[in-house]
Amino acid sequence: MKEYLKHDEWSIIEEGFIPEYNRISESIFSIGNGRFGQRANFEEQYSGDTLPGNYLAGIYYPDKTKVGWWKIGYPEYFAKVLNASSWAGINIDFDGEALDLAECKVEDFRRELNMKEGFLLRTFTAKMKSGRRVKVEAKRFCSIVRDEIAALEYRITPLDFSSPINITPYVDFDVENEDSNYDEKFWVEVDKKVKRRQGYVTAETKKTAFQACTGMKFSIEQGGKEVDFDAYRIEKEKYVACSVDLACKEGETTVIYKYAANVTSLNYKKKELMDRCKAAVKEAYKEGFQSLLREQAIAWGNKWEEADIRIEGDVAAQQGIRFNIFQLYQTYTGEDERLNIGPKGFTGEKYGGSTYWDTEAYCFPFYLATADQSVARNLLVYRYKHLQKAIENAEKLGFTDGAALYPMVTMNGEESHNEWEITFEEIHRNGAIAYAIYDYIRYTGEQEYLSEYGLEVLIGIARFWAQRVHFSKRNGQYMMHGVTGPNEYENNVNNNWYTNYIAKWCLEYAMEAIEYVAQNHPERYQEIEEKIKFYRNTETGKWKDIAGNIYLPKDDELGILVQHDGFLDKELLTVDDLKPEDRPINQNWSWDRILRSVFIKQADVLQGLYFFEDHFDTDTIRRNFDFYEPRTVHESSLSPCVHVILGALLGREEKAYEMYLRTARLDLDDYNNDTEDGCHITSMAGTWMAFVKGFGGMRVFNDTVQFSPFITKNWQSYAFKVRFRGYYLEVKVAGEQTQIINHTNKPLEIMLYGERRELPANGTVEAAVVHRQG
Amino acid sequence: MKEYLKHDEWSIIEEGFIPEYNRISESIFSIGNGRFGQRANFEEQYSGDTLPGNYLAGIYYPDKTKVGWWKIGYPEYFAKVLNASSWAGINIDFDGEALDLAECKVEDFRRELNMKEGFLLRTFTAKMKSGRRVKVEAKRFCSIVRDEIAALEYRITPLDFSSPINITPYVDFDVENEDSNYDEKFWVEVDKKVKRRQGYVTAETKKTAFQACTGMKFSIEQGGKEVDFDAYRIEKEKYVACSVDLACKEGETTVIYKYAANVTSLNYKKKELMDRCKAAVKEAYKEGFQSLLREQAIAWGNKWEEADIRIEGDVAAQQGIRFNIFQLYQTYTGEDERLNIGPKGFTGEKYGGSTYWDTEAYCFPFYLATADQSVARNLLVYRYKHLQKAIENAEKLGFTDGAALYPMVTMNGEESHNEWEITFEEIHRNGAIAYAIYDYIRYTGEQEYLSEYGLEVLIGIARFWAQRVHFSKRNGQYMMHGVTGPNEYENNVNNNWYTNYIAKWCLEYAMEAIEYVAQNHPERYQEIEEKIKFYRNTETGKWKDIAGNIYLPKDDELGILVQHDGFLDKELLTVDDLKPEDRPINQNWSWDRILRSVFIKQADVLQGLYFFEDHFDTDTIRRNFDFYEPRTVHESSLSPCVHVILGALLGREEKAYEMYLRTARLDLDDYNNDTEDGCHITSMAGTWMAFVKGFGGMRVFNDTVQFSPFITKNWQSYAFKVRFRGYYLEVKVAGEQTQIINHTNKPLEIMLYGERRELPANGTVEAAVVHRQG
Repeated sequence: MKEYLKHDEWSIIEEGFIPEYNRISESIFSIGNGRFGQRANFEEQYSGDTLPGNYLAGIYYPDKTKVGWWKIGYPEYFAKVLNASSWAGINIDFDGEALDLAECKVEDFRRELNMKEGFLLRTFTAKMKSGRRVKVEAKRFCSIVRDEIAALEYRITPLDFSSPINITPYVDFDVENEDSNYDEKFWVEVDKKVKRRQGYVTAETKKTAFQACTGMKFSIEQGGKEVDFDAYRIEKEKYVACSVDLACKEGETTVIYKYAANVTSLNYKKKELMDRCKAAVKEAYKEGFQSLLREQAIAWGNKWEEADIRIEGDVAAQQGIRFNIFQLYQTYTGEDERLNIGPKGFTGEKYGGSTYWDTEAYCFPFYLATADQSVARNLLVYRYKHLQKAIENAEKLGFTDGAALYPMVTMNGEESHNEWEITFEEIHRNGAIAYAIYDYIRYTGEQEYLSEYGLEVLIGIARFWAQRVHFSKRNGQYMMHGVTGPNEYENNVNNNWYTNYIAKWCLEYAMEAIEYVAQNHPERYQEIEEKIKFYRNTETGKWKDIAGNIYLPKDDELGILVQHDGFLDKELLTVDDLKPEDRPINQNWSWDRILRSVFIKQADVLQGLYFFEDHFDTDTIRRNFDFYEPRTVHESSLSPCVHVILGALLGREEKAYEMYLRTARLDLDDYNNDTEDGCHITSMAGTWMAFVKGFGGMRVFNDTVQFSPFITKNWQSYAFKVRFRGYYLEVKVAGEQTQIINHTNKPLEIMLYGERRELPANGTVEAAVVHRQG
Repeated sequence: MKEYLKHDEWSIIEEGFIPEYNRISESIFSIGNGRFGQRANFEEQYSGDTLPGNYLAGIYYPDKTKVGWWKIGYPEYFAKVLNASSWAGINIDFDGEALDLAECKVEDFRRELNMKEGFLLRTFTAKMKSGRRVKVEAKRFCSIVRDEIAALEYRITPLDFSSPINITPYVDFDVENEDSNYDEKFWVEVDKKVKRRQGYVTAETKKTAFQACTGMKFSIEQGGKEVDFDAYRIEKEKYVACSVDLACKEGETTVIYKYAANVTSLNYKKKELMDRCKAAVKEAYKEGFQSLLREQAIAWGNKWEEADIRIEGDVAAQQGIRFNIFQLYQTYTGEDERLNIGPKGFTGEKYGGSTYWDTEAYCFPFYLATADQSVARNLLVYRYKHLQKAIENAEKLGFTDGAALYPMVTMNGEESHNEWEITFEEIHRNGAIAYAIYDYIRYTGEQEYLSEYGLEVLIGIARFWAQRVHFSKRNGQYMMHGVTGPNEYENNVNNNWYTNYIAKWCLEYAMEAIEYVAQNHPERYQEIEEKIKFYRNTETGKWKDIAGNIYLPKDDELGILVQHDGFLDKELLTVDDLKPEDRPINQNWSWDRILRSVFIKQADVLQGLYFFEDHFDTDTIRRNFDFYEPRTVHESSLSPCVHVILGALLGREEKAYEMYLRTARLDLDDYNNDTEDGCHITSMAGTWMAFVKGFGGMRVFNDTVQFSPFITKNWQSYAFKVRFRGYYLEVKVAGEQTQIINHTNKPLEIMLYGERRELPANGTVEAAVVHRQG
């Protein structure tokens, strides 16, 4: 855990340069616009430790699998969102001496991620080896208004000398991914152009043959006036630059404006790319930096108006939640159903930028409640379009007859991951994909989704579970052996309660969905039956038998559900028994030690109780929470949010608050000591969920939205807005008073603290905060 | 399964050239002398599919670990016996046309591995692309008399043309390992010399800095007379050759004799290497091919005289067992305690030529009974010398206070393997290492070994088990979670019966050993106590508690020991339920499917019953055999032998014979479809063990050797010899009559079919074969 960032309501601020933290800051200060994004690498060259990162949404490379010991069924490739050209690079030198912070004494270093207006600002004074001192102020952003465009302003002032200055803005596709399996570079040059003040490179990815063009145009001001300059044009493999030599007077500021664009073959024909890029760059150049920045600020203002969560009285918590919301909107806008949400977004390479079950289990509710309904729907359709690949994926593992196993990690629907205990065994992911369909319909009421897309997915998943269980004669029950549950600190266990339970639920929900579509859309139902060769009675007969007779481990003495067979045979320590030097255990213990310990990485039984809260009474939830939470080390970023929600449900307000802070400031405080790899983007949605479902107590059951807000005594007030079926609602809690405000022109019946309340059009209902018993 | 080799009592014979089987034959026809060895690659160039393989004992390279997902505790390197220079290479061309069987029509191709005399012979007639036909006869061997020397005779005759012939014998260290993790070459050149008819290259391994010098000298005969020739000397990086141009008449045979030597820095100072190599080559050259071959035949004759197993009436079985014995003696002679037995010996790269538990569990009894006592002792001392590394290895996994975990795979005592479920969890290997000490003392009576070396190893191992178990309060017993038993088709299971049982036994045996050394060698005991900071009462108090209260899963209803927790919850199919296309399952099923299936790769519970036969009554063994054997797919080469021995014990003579054939001809018939990677050397010792302990019923208990031989009706007779405590005994079974012959000048009391018998000096006892009830 590190706490080197300043607390501020609207900005992330780093003061002072700590080279050892540079990779962490590069992650945290990342900027993006859903279409592309980049880590906070410096504009000028930097020979110190850095992880260059520039990513283009949907542009990936199937890197050949690297594995010690091959197992049948492993994928041949791991699809990775690959590093692209930096659009922001500008090399600076004075009289032959390069500006490179690794070679300077750095003073007054400050980085600010201005979340309110959506830009990154960096200022510093550097004393170079020669003794010369220069002051720099660099501001940049990726436009969310014009999502192909980015711009920067780079102000540089020699403080105590005059000398020639060389300014070299460039575009460079000769980049590598640090996690490339075989130290390969993934781009090949297609075309490039360079003129006096602009340059373009089009490059193509190997194998996948995506093309991208990154271009730039720049202007320079000195003494407040635009400079006319000559430039040497530099061309190298996959690289263009313009090199400008100017004189530079002591105390006079040189300002470089660099305008850039990124366009890809995902959106344009390949042969048009460079022209499209030029047009975008030209548009940005014409618009000008200040004007682009103004519209950026306005656009972010609008987003905040809708999506902000305001907390009074706790700057750290306020900053944390805004950082999460900001990064989520920088990562995924939901406009393009081909895209999804990588665990690190545009902030790092790790996990390859691919899609995990995180999307359905953690990100889905955020987009459902804060964005247009089409955004969540696009996330579902993304999986529908991968159904055939999921069936092929299951076939590789010996399944037949249309059984579908969605991949653990994917870009294009094919499995990318290659650890047998995850790839082949962490199959509960299939359940989350079904659950998201259920969640979508529950939230939106759009039952029709079943007939259009949902049913086929649900049947494919149900078929998988029906084949994956076995009947244990000895026990007279169906069982599921050899799985990894959500708690990845257990591998290859038998009868993981969560997996068995969600399998049972999937079978039942699929049968409901079949019933619904068959009754309400008989023709469509017929079509599906034929398309997927579905033998309704035979198949659902089997499903019913399984759902009714699947083994769900529980312990009557403790009154809890049992994580998996044998779990209670362990040494039942709690996290308090761990020594500080043991934590995080995944950085200190060998894998076998982690596995045989009782410690839980992330919610497992509790994940199930969170999903299926309405299936269990509060006492059951409480006993399980009290048993499992103290044994949970939360070394997955996805863990705390579930504990906030259940903690809140049980009235464990302090526990909920503690967990909430941990998830909200996970990256800002580098809790898990891994933010250098990138930010935990998908868990940020979990943070939002923790807030709204935890503190806000928001639920949707029986077509009715419910709230049961409470407030921690550390806060004076908080407020958030949600969308619900065409309504736009605001929840405000101040002191011990709750207000629900309807920002819509129609009334709505809601549940508040368990009571039915009429919320008038554009009106408000109020109530005193009800605290549950802790 | 393939059956393309001819059945013959003394030779392995391939007739006809099948390029697709070339790698298999290259493995099977390998030759070696314990110091070096090589696959049966052709002398002349071959552009078809081939796995070049030339290995020098003890010369390895730590190849950087390749792994998809790193886990704490993984080794950074995998130590591999690396490919070295071929000593046998000779390129041949006629008038510019290279002789290359991949480019020829091959007739009358025949390979013969003459096991009786220890040489490899290859003959063929090749029709070259130009239409020219040549006949070749190539014979070679690695001398077991002079273990640095090898020699070959290459006879080549143009059948229907006269032309110039170019002959180019070479030494070439510019080789690569096919399984190199990063496509790296491991040798760098140190020195080389080439003269008119000889050449030498000294090369050094990267990182480990071993040096090896391979040298050659050759002569040529035509028309039965030695030819005087000039040679172009060719030098390239790590390569020397002599290129000789001669005329060659239709029907006239050109004979090349190439004499070679391999010497390494394991045995000489580096700076002496080339001189030592020259001296060895000179000696060989002077001795001449025929003379060297004669002494080779005599030496092999002597080995066979001692170690042969003779079977009358079953050529396939006879050939199988001789092939096993032959390969074992080619691999390990036991003269050098720094060496050990790699799973593939000198026949392939796979498994890196490293040491596995195979040595203790399967190879040990073979060397114990057929070689000088010092050989088995050297195998134990090898592990003693690795004790410190085993302690460090355990420390990496969180163990303390001198607990020792021997590596799964090792060359120098450090762990090489990198699969968590094996490296960290297949810990039963520690038990086998303790068991070998017990086995050695039981067999030889040399109790003193404990005080010299054994005790420290036993205490280190006992300390490991004492820390590895945990106390399950709920069950009031010690348990061991997260292990992989000998059956590697189960990973990360809880309470593997075999592992728990051998852990218990190790604790008890360590306590016995302590008692013995403390009483009989009090000073030495004191010294050990101080050296390893052993707190006898505290530690053994704990050990006693564990040994007395460790959970050993069993099922009263079935009357069996249970392989591990949950095993009986599986779908309890038997191998008969498998479809032919499913087998071998490890080549057809994904790993999760294998894991959750009931099918057993190799003896697990039965391995324990084999080791501790005297702890269980026959009914228990029978019930377990009848339960587990039908569920065993024997996809480890180490599996059938244990089933032969137990099957024989239970009177399942047919089952024992079936299993025996499978192990004896495993490579000859390519049972597991993997002989192309190399022969299963360590399992060959298991075959011997299967014969002697299975058919021969040999045991040693209470300082007495026991026999209970039976014979399958497929054989007329068999005979084998064993050494036992200075005695030299022969067991002969013909028809229904058993003879035990004492080839020693002193009488011995033995047990025959459970009865005490006096075996006179140089005398015989006889008995009718007793068949156990099947």
